[in-house]
Amino acid sequence: MDSRNVRLAVIPGDGIGTEVVTEGLKVLEAVGTKVETTTYDLGAGRYHRTGEVLPEAVLDELRGYDAILLGAVGDPSVPPGILERELLLKLRFELDHYVNLRPVKLFPGVATPLGGSRPEDIDMVVIREGTEGLYAGAGGALRRGTPYEIATQESLNTAYGVERVVRYAFEKALSRPRKKLSLIHKTNVLTFAGDLWSRTVDRVSLEYPDVATDYYHVDAASMFFVTQPERFDVIVTDNLFGDIITDLGAAVAGGIGLAASGNVNPDRTAPSMFEPVHGSAPDIAGQGKADPTATILSVAMLLDHLGLTEEAAKVEQAVAEDLVERQTGWASRTTHEIGDDITARVAG
Amino acid sequence: MDSRNVRLAVIPGDGIGTEVVTEGLKVLEAVGTKVETTTYDLGAGRYHRTGEVLPEAVLDELRGYDAILLGAVGDPSVPPGILERELLLKLRFELDHYVNLRPVKLFPGVATPLGGSRPEDIDMVVIREGTEGLYAGAGGALRRGTPYEIATQESLNTAYGVERVVRYAFEKALSRPRKKLSLIHKTNVLTFAGDLWSRTVDRVSLEYPDVATDYYHVDAASMFFVTQPERFDVIVTDNLFGDIITDLGAAVAGGIGLAASGNVNPDRTAPSMFEPVHGSAPDIAGQGKADPTATILSVAMLLDHLGLTEEAAKVEQAVAEDLVERQTGWASRTTHEIGDDITARVAG
Ligand SMILES: CC(C)[C@H](C(=O)O)[C@@H](O)C(=O)O
Ligand SMILES: CC(C)[C@H](C(=O)O)[C@@H](O)C(=O)O
Repeated sequence: MDSRNVRLAVIPGDGIGTEVVTEGLKVLEAVGTKVETTTYDLGAGRYHRTGEVLPEAVLDELRGYDAILLGAVGDPSVPPGILERELLLKLRFELDHYVNLRPVKLFPGVATPLGGSRPEDIDMVVIREGTEGLYAGAGGALRRGTPYEIATQESLNTAYGVERVVRYAFEKALSRPRKKLSLIHKTNVLTFAGDLWSRTVDRVSLEYPDVATDYYHVDAASMFFVTQPERFDVIVTDNLFGDIITDLGAAVAGGIGLAASGNVNPDRTAPSMFEPVHGSAPDIAGQGKADPTATILSVAMLLDHLGLTEEAAKVEQAVAEDLVERQTGWASRTTHEIGDDITARVAG
Repeated sequence: MDSRNVRLAVIPGDGIGTEVVTEGLKVLEAVGTKVETTTYDLGAGRYHRTGEVLPEAVLDELRGYDAILLGAVGDPSVPPGILERELLLKLRFELDHYVNLRPVKLFPGVATPLGGSRPEDIDMVVIREGTEGLYAGAGGALRRGTPYEIATQESLNTAYGVERVVRYAFEKALSRPRKKLSLIHKTNVLTFAGDLWSRTVDRVSLEYPDVATDYYHVDAASMFFVTQPERFDVIVTDNLFGDIITDLGAAVAGGIGLAASGNVNPDRTAPSMFEPVHGSAPDIAGQGKADPTATILSVAMLLDHLGLTEEAAKVEQAVAEDLVERQTGWASRTTHEIGDDITARVAG
């Protein structure tokens, strides 16, 4: 990686997406890594102008990069599902991002809505499956718009798909001090999928005697995220449950403005994509109000994925320091100013 | 109702189920309503002794009551799904409990894990659909136990099923001061089911000009439950999302020990069933540690459903007073003592 430039595709997207990506790139530059970026205009804007969401040729080009940085796409003017299914999820599925990596970590100095929790209580990594489940898009509608309509959605789960993400989760758990892995599912109702997930965890666990495993129903887990987040270290879960609990995790760990994520292809058969968990927030777009921290932390994850561990640590450290200082004067800084302050720490 | 005894079927169930039901019945007796109870032995105990879960004859008998009070069923010794599917969910489906009514209300004096929330911020009613969605049990597995296994779960949603629960939710919203109804779904990913749900809410809303409606994706809603619970008044949502957010709601509103629920058949073609949201908690069973409050509040919902509004209010009032007093000395009372104290308030 060090011998040549990192080739990065950048998709700023819509709304605050473009604003936060600007700051993320500023930090990336300051870190000293040689990066060659190419910007792709995708999202609601392009869709309205041209009707295109993700042309095949663009998808093919994207495959050639070392990594992708995404801001956020979406706008209320686009019917629900179009940009999600044909752009965001298409990238995850086509680039085989079977690990959706979402740290849930309360940084010192950050306020949590949970009155009694301290930073050491909230430090987990959620590994959300990214290419199966209810996100597969299977389903349909019959007699739409009549009193006899039926609409279905199907969750598709394969041994292949579940095992690979479970293995990744065990490796991750092994690398952390607590070495604990929790499966979150709803095995008592989703009996077929739940059976596959729990059998897989049980079987793979035999190869990881040092990792302690346990299980939570998703409803109970949601409760514990709020009442006893210290229960969790590494979590592995399906696509939809992971979607819900990582937003909940973001809420308890200081808000969506800080939540970073990686859509990771661990086999490196295609580039991985890093993005803040938040959306395009059209209501605050263009006002310099967006917090770029989630994007900057996503840049740290991107660096880490590329093997640039020291650079990643530097960025995370700069964010951690900035967060401590925010205790005074948070509300008064613009998107740019936060980006500048973190950049200065990285550079200095 | 007043002219004859209320005929109540009681299913204490397993673990703490039997303990909390005893207290619920004590309160019910104190309220002065003439109630004739018949106890049914169902749950893990019966399953282990006889292999039976819910014999057809028992189900038929249950249809004849005015209402059902359930404690909790389940034990780790029973494989996941058996008691859920063949007992709990079977009752909901067979008795057409299409409204799963779950108040999420922070009583004065109750501690919430949310540092900044006050009782007036957390006062909602979640109306969870109870007879469709992923709970229908549709799905299967192919090549189970091989590397080529595929496991599916299908969410079934009908215009009939969605419209009736949406109408109930609008009526409920109309009866409350804020008159606000929020739909929670994941329309951007579950596009077929989401489309049916949102079209139905839009269409029915034309008949309720006084009710304001809005929409949240389930991931965003989970976040707002923690950061801005005051956003919500009445919520309508599907079976699985309702399962998750009501446990989350219980957590923010003082814990699962206080969360009551009703599985309601609004058409009264079969008895409705009332139960605490919590489970059988085998880890604390038999120790007098369980909080019977959720069951007692479920009894209040039961009375309300039977048209005994004053009696219902009396029970809720007694619980509210007890909760204020708990600020001192909560931990020191047993299940019986809490039941006795609330009973005394109801009687006095
Ligand atoms: C936008 C949406 C399709 C997406 C998801 O549900 O995965 C988002 O909520 C996320 O978590 O990245
Ligand atoms: C026990 C289980 C089947 C049930 C559900 O998922 O509905 C429970 O969690 C509940 O919320 O009543």
